[in-house]
Amino acid sequence: MTDSKVMNIAKKRGFLWSSFEIYSGSAGFFDYGPLGAILKNNIIEKWRNYYIIREGFYEIESPTIMPEEALKASGHVDHFTDPMTECKDCLEVYRADHIIEDAIDKDVEGLEDQKLTEIISENQIKCPKCGGHLTHVWSYNLMFQTLIGAKGKKTGYMRPETAQGIFIPFKRLLRFFRGKLPFGVVQIGKAYRNEISPRQGVIRLREFTQAEAEIFVDPSDKTHPKFDAIAHDTLTLFSAENQMKNKESERISASKAVDKGLVSSEILTYQLCLAAQFLSDLGIPFDDIRFRQHLPTEMAHYACDCWDVEVLTDRFGWIEIIGIADRTDFDLKSHSTYSKEDLSVFIEYDEPRTITKMAVKPDMKKFGPLFKGDTPKILGALENFEASDIQKAFEEKGFFKLEVDGNSHELSPDIISFEEQKETVRGEKIIPHVIEPSYGIDRIIYSVLLHSYTENNDRTYLKLEKQIAPVGVSVFPLVNKVELVDIAHQIRDELRKQNIIAEYDGSGTIGRRYARSDEIGVPFAVTVDHETIENETVTIRNRDNLKQVRVSIKDIYKILIDLIEGRLEFENI
Amino acid sequence: MTDSKVMNIAKKRGFLWSSFEIYSGSAGFFDYGPLGAILKNNIIEKWRNYYIIREGFYEIESPTIMPEEALKASGHVDHFTDPMTECKDCLEVYRADHIIEDAIDKDVEGLEDQKLTEIISENQIKCPKCGGHLTHVWSYNLMFQTLIGAKGKKTGYMRPETAQGIFIPFKRLLRFFRGKLPFGVVQIGKAYRNEISPRQGVIRLREFTQAEAEIFVDPSDKTHPKFDAIAHDTLTLFSAENQMKNKESERISASKAVDKGLVSSEILTYQLCLAAQFLSDLGIPFDDIRFRQHLPTEMAHYACDCWDVEVLTDRFGWIEIIGIADRTDFDLKSHSTYSKEDLSVFIEYDEPRTITKMAVKPDMKKFGPLFKGDTPKILGALENFEASDIQKAFEEKGFFKLEVDGNSHELSPDIISFEEQKETVRGEKIIPHVIEPSYGIDRIIYSVLLHSYTENNDRTYLKLEKQIAPVGVSVFPLVNKVELVDIAHQIRDELRKQNIIAEYDGSGTIGRRYARSDEIGVPFAVTVDHETIENETVTIRNRDNLKQVRVSIKDIYKILIDLIEGRLEFENI
Repeated sequence: MTDSKVMNIAKKRGFLWSSFEIYSGSAGFFDYGPLGAILKNNIIEKWRNYYIIREGFYEIESPTIMPEEALKASGHVDHFTDPMTECKDCLEVYRADHIIEDAIDKDVEGLEDQKLTEIISENQIKCPKCGGHLTHVWSYNLMFQTLIGAKGKKTGYMRPETAQGIFIPFKRLLRFFRGKLPFGVVQIGKAYRNEISPRQGVIRLREFTQAEAEIFVDPSDKTHPKFDAIAHDTLTLFSAENQMKNKESERISASKAVDKGLVSSEILTYQLCLAAQFLSDLGIPFDDIRFRQHLPTEMAHYACDCWDVEVLTDRFGWIEIIGIADRTDFDLKSHSTYSKEDLSVFIEYDEPRTITKMAVKPDMKKFGPLFKGDTPKILGALENFEASDIQKAFEEKGFFKLEVDGNSHELSPDIISFEEQKETVRGEKIIPHVIEPSYGIDRIIYSVLLHSYTENNDRTYLKLEKQIAPVGVSVFPLVNKVELVDIAHQIRDELRKQNIIAEYDGSGTIGRRYARSDEIGVPFAVTVDHETIENETVTIRNRDNLKQVRVSIKDIYKILIDLIEGRLEFENI
Repeated sequence: MTDSKVMNIAKKRGFLWSSFEIYSGSAGFFDYGPLGAILKNNIIEKWRNYYIIREGFYEIESPTIMPEEALKASGHVDHFTDPMTECKDCLEVYRADHIIEDAIDKDVEGLEDQKLTEIISENQIKCPKCGGHLTHVWSYNLMFQTLIGAKGKKTGYMRPETAQGIFIPFKRLLRFFRGKLPFGVVQIGKAYRNEISPRQGVIRLREFTQAEAEIFVDPSDKTHPKFDAIAHDTLTLFSAENQMKNKESERISASKAVDKGLVSSEILTYQLCLAAQFLSDLGIPFDDIRFRQHLPTEMAHYACDCWDVEVLTDRFGWIEIIGIADRTDFDLKSHSTYSKEDLSVFIEYDEPRTITKMAVKPDMKKFGPLFKGDTPKILGALENFEASDIQKAFEEKGFFKLEVDGNSHELSPDIISFEEQKETVRGEKIIPHVIEPSYGIDRIIYSVLLHSYTENNDRTYLKLEKQIAPVGVSVFPLVNKVELVDIAHQIRDELRKQNIIAEYDGSGTIGRRYARSDEIGVPFAVTVDHETIENETVTIRNRDNLKQVRVSIKDIYKILIDLIEGRLEFENI
């Protein structure tokens, strides 16, 4: 299986390995080794290039530990759960949905605990380990819990997503963007999920890296100014409808996807296309990418339309590596309710609008004699109500009841009249909607490694895209002669000065060195040979087609930088 | 105070603010806003340039959650504590050392709990809040604790330092570096410290970012190959001896610091110089930096020589922003003991050495008749012992007792003789020592902001170094005419395409816009004016001296990139 071949290289050569190996490991935790960390940083830099440079969003960074109130508001304390069941005999715990799927091959994601318990019972599903009876299914919260402070300890959690750190300081962000929608804010960082039993390597981590963008938009305008640029891009969409009807995914252009209402808005579709371009830049083939819409049963508690970007793998089938959701106003509204802060945005109309409004007109001739000294207070209290409130009370009860300083007054229709008035309004307050592309960086790295693995004419190599390959250039002396070794070292040092990660390798035969270099996906190799001493030239070898060209040493730096950054094709050197 | 002026700008303009403000905040947690996050990323990129590009170290990334065993081995479960005391009346808790220092102005860092309890009692120190009696002092562990997994829950902690994530996979790292010392591995990431009562803003965070390098060296060789390059650098050293004798710090060259034994090794001194260069590159003045050696009482449990790099601040006095320590073999030895893994390195001698060794010679003529069929087993068992073990037993007890398959044999001196033998040895196994520069990124950012704050002729600006300023270029139309606005937008977009963060500002007078741009430290401003329309030129304004030059639009991109990257001086445009 490609998975095991790639993970073997990853471990052996320093991309990825299980954390805490000397302490027998800890499931769901991985280290990025020296090559893995560079690959990860390169992929994150490319992501920044897309979302910060191209889209013009700004990055922020918020803490990974969050106080309970904030996660109560976001819904995670109540809803960030997995269904769990335990064997009554051997006490092993399982994810109830996984154990059902394994036993009867039925997709039960999103079903309620009660329903899952019934399915286990009806199908007589037993503990896969000892055959014992399973308990009722209950909801297990997936957040890592901790206590903040030494005193009056406050409950805190490791954040389940980076997004919340963007919603909470929304008022400050709105101020930074001078009160104007739309704007986008991104965060790249750790998120946590205390999985019940993570057994899928780097695919199901308890600690992982997310890159999320939260794009705040006017709910009445979900068009996108740059939609034309992607309107003809093709997407492979697997709609909720097709999934439910057991149909296949379909290839469709972005503009048709919007026209047919397959994706709910232009801006969401634009984000799907951006994700497809990004993955293509990382070298993941178009045919191995699809967009799967969430079924109504699996939709997160905050979303109205949600698409998983899935990549095909040989070990796990289609896996989600990016989620793109329209989170509506769920988060801001909820934080506003819990925190009692106004998280709305004032949207100014292009032109002030004149609106007709019903005004409340107390009959002053009757109020004075009726309420005497209390009149001013009663009039003041009345101002807090809309005409419609009072009209409704008149219709339903025949009077309007007003509380003033603990005293109750019943106002009858004969002392209040209503009058149409015109008012000039500059704009209105709205709660923005949020469009969110959420990238799982670790799964993306796994997918990139997997799809770069190539076996070809007895050669094994990682066909990593030049811009993200951890090592850009290998430098070898053809043989271990001091003159050649010295020149090779100088070239390696000069490349590093120019910000290219270059590695020297002087051990074993030249063939072994090319093989080692190929195995970690180094796109170019420079070889110093006997001719170098005669005329100061070296060869540059192209990993992908094994072609070599001979160039002057003084020219190689510019050539290699241009090759890596895609400004020059190898054939045109 | 500069502190409050800077923090006010930081909050208002989007550098830094307290996290979770809408939930009344949570002490010890800060958000980096849009400008703060860029500043932080720029500083981290510069750090990578120093330690990865220049020094040739490799970065790795390990989890922030760690299982208890690993932190038991590192000493943090037992020693990562602060002394704590509680008021018996109002139940407020305090750091015992802080409360003593506030009450009697005496430095008591590093004293034992028992001693602190005595000092509180002797000096009748009371609760500063209510005057109540304080309890005995006890050790409070500063790690955030959590539980990993749903079942048989394992205790885990948020890591107290990134360093441990480098020590634990040491065997894999050694393999990556092909078994050769020295090599350096860095990690940049979050670390956590559940402070008892953090009340110093961004200086005492519960969650912070470290950039640490762990340099593994042969303990017998703490020289540095590039020492000559920094030998004449001047350092301001505040030795433990001078601190204890109430003397001042002293300025001394790196080479003298080593010669006089002030700093314990060349490699440690090299790291002090590197830190000084780095801070100078960030714009922190030389006079506001000093290196303070740890007193014997405050040295961490793992270190043999440790220097704090301190920066002068107006609010907190001298604060530690970098720690540079010789951690010896403490960590690797300890992890080796706890995990029972061999974490040693085989150091090959330059030339194989011939050593003289005493060999054990059993008298075969006597062994055969004496032990008969057991002879081979007994000879085999004997091979597990050194000659010295057996000689010692002969001297002390007159015989050597050997257990074989549960039977005990007493071997007498007349059946064993010893013979000197020569043996060729290729090298030896050692546990490397570790030199560690540990950077507190948040405190560095605070120091950079503080020292960049400038008031000058009615102007207030952040004199941020060009390479780390979050926004590189402001672009303004002189007045809000459509032709000027369009050109300004085009220039902004083109600058962004070339990877320069450029901001457009079209609101208010040109004076207000310059002031806003200065306040966040934008080094250059491009202004589009009436002349632009005539001859396609714009002005570039230099933040620091207010000089302006007029240049052709087509030239500004290269000029601005060269200015920001330090390849061109403003005067030479």
